[in-house]
Amino acid sequence: MADLARLSLNQATTERWSVAEAVEGCVRHDIRSIGLWRHKVQETGLKESARLVRDAGLHVSSLCRGGMFPAATATERKLRIQDNFMAVTECAELGADCLVLVVGAAVEVPLPSARQMVSDGLAALVPHAKKHGVRLGLEPLHPMFAAERCVLNTIDQALEMAAPYSPEEVGLILDTFHIWWDPRVYEQIESASGRIFGLHVSDWLVPLPDILMGRGIMGDGVIDNRSIREAIDRTGYRGPIEVEVFNQTVWDSPGTEVLDVIVERFSSRV
Amino acid sequence: MADLARLSLNQATTERWSVAEAVEGCVRHDIRSIGLWRHKVQETGLKESARLVRDAGLHVSSLCRGGMFPAATATERKLRIQDNFMAVTECAELGADCLVLVVGAAVEVPLPSARQMVSDGLAALVPHAKKHGVRLGLEPLHPMFAAERCVLNTIDQALEMAAPYSPEEVGLILDTFHIWWDPRVYEQIESASGRIFGLHVSDWLVPLPDILMGRGIMGDGVIDNRSIREAIDRTGYRGPIEVEVFNQTVWDSPGTEVLDVIVERFSSRV
Repeated sequence: MADLARLSLNQATTERWSVAEAVEGCVRHDIRSIGLWRHKVQETGLKESARLVRDAGLHVSSLCRGGMFPAATATERKLRIQDNFMAVTECAELGADCLVLVVGAAVEVPLPSARQMVSDGLAALVPHAKKHGVRLGLEPLHPMFAAERCVLNTIDQALEMAAPYSPEEVGLILDTFHIWWDPRVYEQIESASGRIFGLHVSDWLVPLPDILMGRGIMGDGVIDNRSIREAIDRTGYRGPIEVEVFNQTVWDSPGTEVLDVIVERFSSRV
Repeated sequence: MADLARLSLNQATTERWSVAEAVEGCVRHDIRSIGLWRHKVQETGLKESARLVRDAGLHVSSLCRGGMFPAATATERKLRIQDNFMAVTECAELGADCLVLVVGAAVEVPLPSARQMVSDGLAALVPHAKKHGVRLGLEPLHPMFAAERCVLNTIDQALEMAAPYSPEEVGLILDTFHIWWDPRVYEQIESASGRIFGLHVSDWLVPLPDILMGRGIMGDGVIDNRSIREAIDRTGYRGPIEVEVFNQTVWDSPGTEVLDVIVERFSSRV
């Protein structure tokens, strides 16, 4: 089993909680790390959020999220990049391990052009991130999100996009929900050795209730989270493992109960 | 644009029509080919279905579908293979270009085992298909179906599974809905040269209404059907192009109106 000290609560799992409540929840359940979301940090305030996690002795495994580079107009694309600059600043202030990039998609933009816009956006962002000591984590999302949310859809593709940059600057966030299906997932994980900045776990429910809000807690679906985690460990990754579950039923449950289940499932399933 | 003579109506697009009605629809709209479904053929009767298409002078581009190999027990897997034997017989009787294999998935079976069961099922089926002069078309389905419907999810993976057999015996059915997202789709299509037994077109709607029943007619979504069709043409494939749209709104519309739209969109978008 994975060392419980590696468990991190991705804040999206307890969407109704403020930063303060999520931090308290982690402390109560002896969870040592937290993955924060920008909209939650903004609600609480950046400095106050940074103080809360620091005072609680929590490690910030990531800040979600930057990215969303493709857009129909040059003006809009520029605004997106400016927003990523702000995300970098927030990430530095929070002392997070990395900024997670969900790279985006735009229905008006053909797929090859959208992928080029992501490369261009990343190129614009890297120097700024480097200056602030912030690592950028490209997250390949499941191919079912290629039209709406993320045109980066396999580990290989993310590695190719990261290749021009140092493994200290640009790496990958691997999320089992997005990569489990791939017939080449274990080979691709091996190729990502040295570039893995983070690991997210959850589960794929059958039938899938919803493409966005249909994830399960580890053990409730078909993903072999343990085998994937072990393969990622073999590359040398020893960092936090975030539990990130987008699911309305989970969101509607009391956070403390959700954390009880997560801690148990992390031990038994990850 | 694609030659209209290549347009084939996959019967799933006009789900409410019987074989007789679909055949009449094709004749009325000067559609020269039809892709039949087994449950529809069974309603009408095999010999009667064969007579209907023959008398109308229609070409049968495929029979959907065999496959569904993975199952939790050996007994059940044997039954599935027997059902595939029947499908081969039906395919031969109908004179279809090939039997489409949607290879299946089973929630109780881990993904690597399920993929092995598909290889095993295919190995059991090939000699029987060869004896009856029936070609088997492996259809890679979108990765979002890996848990429930099909553990074959990329062109490369399907090619690897087909490799032990002659390109006259086992090939691929490429469906733009399933492959459009792949960052390596054009390279993979090129690799599939000589193994392409069929092409299906439809569209990916945004937002996606439903993973199974959410397809659109070409032009209503984000898929670049023309570029993919042209890439497939470059491999030397000159066969029928089936329009296969699983969509409740399309199913609820009068078939004749649907065929009007399909013929127009085939010209303007494929």
